[in-house]
Amino acid sequence: MDLYKKDSKQSQEQHHFSEQDQYGLYKSIFNRRDVRGQFLPSEIPNDVLSRILYAAHHAPSVGFMQPWNFIVIKSPEIKNRIHQSFTLAHQEAQAMFEAEKQDKYKNLKLEGIIESPINICITCDRNRTGKTVIGRTHMKEMDLYSSVCAVQNFWLAARAEGLGVGWVSILHHDTLKETLALPDSVVPIAYLCVGYVSHFNEKPELESANWLPRRPIDELVNFNGWEQAASNNTEQALIEQLRANIDFPQSFNK
Amino acid sequence: MDLYKKDSKQSQEQHHFSEQDQYGLYKSIFNRRDVRGQFLPSEIPNDVLSRILYAAHHAPSVGFMQPWNFIVIKSPEIKNRIHQSFTLAHQEAQAMFEAEKQDKYKNLKLEGIIESPINICITCDRNRTGKTVIGRTHMKEMDLYSSVCAVQNFWLAARAEGLGVGWVSILHHDTLKETLALPDSVVPIAYLCVGYVSHFNEKPELESANWLPRRPIDELVNFNGWEQAASNNTEQALIEQLRANIDFPQSFNK
Repeated sequence: MDLYKKDSKQSQEQHHFSEQDQYGLYKSIFNRRDVRGQFLPSEIPNDVLSRILYAAHHAPSVGFMQPWNFIVIKSPEIKNRIHQSFTLAHQEAQAMFEAEKQDKYKNLKLEGIIESPINICITCDRNRTGKTVIGRTHMKEMDLYSSVCAVQNFWLAARAEGLGVGWVSILHHDTLKETLALPDSVVPIAYLCVGYVSHFNEKPELESANWLPRRPIDELVNFNGWEQAASNNTEQALIEQLRANIDFPQSFNK
Repeated sequence: MDLYKKDSKQSQEQHHFSEQDQYGLYKSIFNRRDVRGQFLPSEIPNDVLSRILYAAHHAPSVGFMQPWNFIVIKSPEIKNRIHQSFTLAHQEAQAMFEAEKQDKYKNLKLEGIIESPINICITCDRNRTGKTVIGRTHMKEMDLYSSVCAVQNFWLAARAEGLGVGWVSILHHDTLKETLALPDSVVPIAYLCVGYVSHFNEKPELESANWLPRRPIDELVNFNGWEQAASNNTEQALIEQLRANIDFPQSFNK
């Protein structure tokens, strides 16, 4: 079937998702992890990498501007310079936490820049399609957000291909721009470590380390305005459904 | 199988994605559209909505801060006020385009605020877990980006559930904050129109309308620095693979 043919009954049926199709998406969403410590040195085949990049390229973008670029980094020299920027920023960061959290922070493994076979920087070119962009006229940050959507597509596709991804944000922005020779108009959105892994963790590492708990989702949903609770039966039923779904991944994966 | 049990050989095998699993994810990524004009009034069942919200809640977040809230909007009064903000901003936006593009812009349908049964605003609470957040010490925008990842998870899950989503960004930020009574520390990230649709378009509407073309992905991939071309056989092979994959969705969906 051709995704790009004209609308027709047949193609609309093809647009329907079976439970099996839904399962693949949800499996990727619920099993995606920020990977820092389990990278294997195995090469990533080009056909795998190309599929993931293609998924990222099909993210939504404001005014269809597709502001992203993908800089694939294998150079040991570049990786070392980025790692030095991390080491410095990591030391500075440690001092910002209250005394009781500093030790815990120091012992967290927060990046895999050197061990991962590939680093990828996803950027946003703010000048990509000229000054005036549909949908960016009133919210100037929309192009940055488009590139973030590309990051999330990349991450989910990588997970489905068995690759771990870690997003390193403890970096000096200026060092990152200089090391990758980014022009003024180009913002580095995400610096990602990518590679096959020995295993995927069952839970986010900061959750397992008791840094912070998973928030109950029913406390994050409101109606028609900030902190407005359910005010009718349908809204109350949604909140109850959310409470019942706290273990959605378990029941889904049975 | 229980996603949350301790690591074991069995659970790692369960972490493997079959081709069928991968298909579901890619199908959602390549068939997701920004929907503006095809909303049906049908109610969205609470179990469907709860699954999508749960998917959004499982986005990555910097320092596991989970900064998002989900404001579900059905109130005709609130929807009307948001629509008025859109109408004003849309008129202002039109005047920003060059004369030749103004007519085309005017004729684009860019929102479905009133027709869609539910609007949802996804926000970012910048104070959610205190001042110092792991991973936000040097890149202050990371919490905003986390909420954008939640938007993309929401969008993909909605697509897999047969729901259209449109992101409306032609809005006055201050009016949006005031209408939804958001506190100072809470940033509205995405205002989404959500509902079942008469059909999904084969291509993005701005592509079909010849506003902008899809960019060739091989021109967006570089190596070790900005605009640096492939410099060895492996890198060149990736570029060739990307060129060959221009029609990836077609071949994938056969």
